[in-house]
Amino acid sequence: MEKNGGRVVSSVELAGKCRVKAHQVRKDLSYFGEFGIRGVGYYVKDLLREIKRILGLNKEWRMAVIGIGNLGSALLSYKDFLKQNYKIVAAFDIDPAKVIGRVSEKLGKPVEVLHISRVKEAVKERKIEIGLITTPASEAQNVANILVEAEVKGILNFAPAQITVPEGYVVKDAFFTTILDNLAYLLSST
Amino acid sequence: MEKNGGRVVSSVELAGKCRVKAHQVRKDLSYFGEFGIRGVGYYVKDLLREIKRILGLNKEWRMAVIGIGNLGSALLSYKDFLKQNYKIVAAFDIDPAKVIGRVSEKLGKPVEVLHISRVKEAVKERKIEIGLITTPASEAQNVANILVEAEVKGILNFAPAQITVPEGYVVKDAFFTTILDNLAYLLSST
Repeated sequence: MEKNGGRVVSSVELAGKCRVKAHQVRKDLSYFGEFGIRGVGYYVKDLLREIKRILGLNKEWRMAVIGIGNLGSALLSYKDFLKQNYKIVAAFDIDPAKVIGRVSEKLGKPVEVLHISRVKEAVKERKIEIGLITTPASEAQNVANILVEAEVKGILNFAPAQITVPEGYVVKDAFFTTILDNLAYLLSST
Repeated sequence: MEKNGGRVVSSVELAGKCRVKAHQVRKDLSYFGEFGIRGVGYYVKDLLREIKRILGLNKEWRMAVIGIGNLGSALLSYKDFLKQNYKIVAAFDIDPAKVIGRVSEKLGKPVEVLHISRVKEAVKERKIEIGLITTPASEAQNVANILVEAEVKGILNFAPAQITVPEGYVVKDAFFTTILDNLAYLLSST
């Protein structure tokens, strides 16, 4: 809407696009503050800014990839991260062969692969907030522990393993069978 | 434990493996029924059966893949589904070139690709309960609508698009940037 020059949008319009009811749009948004104008709707630019703020997308998230196999390498060259305010600023592996001189060539600025022992130091220097775990399942919890020790608060786990972290840390699973198990559970219990 | 011949397991042992507290294990399990024996622990075989039941893994989940591109094809030949009681019993695409004669060769029993117009009929015949959406983002909601109309209650969405479904249906996102957005939101709001 912003790109198309839209200035104002009503809750009815928004509801149509989101396939929900207009009163639900108004109710949900009002939960975060009063940025609608009765009888008018929402200013597109203001609403966009507010939604980005609500979703945590008004900032750059600095990420590290741990485990530079096929998936890790693919993530290093995934260009759409940049569009979405995510940036991979470090990569780690335990294999010295991968650490020496290996860089992601497809990104504008290459990311060098560091040895896993350097996580804590790099997290501090590069202000890393999210760790992407792309190791084999057997290593996932160990890597999570290393990230927790380095106070990386968010983990996206691509390994097919359940990971536990202390309170105050957040793990989301990105491996599809783990998500499928969760779906099966929800289907069973409804 | 069952494979290693274990007969009984204590909540302390379970807690150690799950990296949680023993009282939490007892509390969580007791929520689903009384299958622990005070002073003894849990019979491994019984506990395994109960946990499978709780998680909805004591049955075979029959699935369809919609969208036979790279990812859809990869899922069709993903062998570990079978280990986990998931079975792909149908595949759909809109492209006639993919529909004619194309089958997954890597599975024991090939899955033929049907035209998308045949979803409702196949869902009924093959008792499909979960749909995996592997289409481009632009088609994801349309496919979800088709699955909902066919009363497929669970959807695993691999497309980078937000999908909405009516009450009583469950969608889980399997595309990593969607999961990452969710993680960013959780990190922002804690």
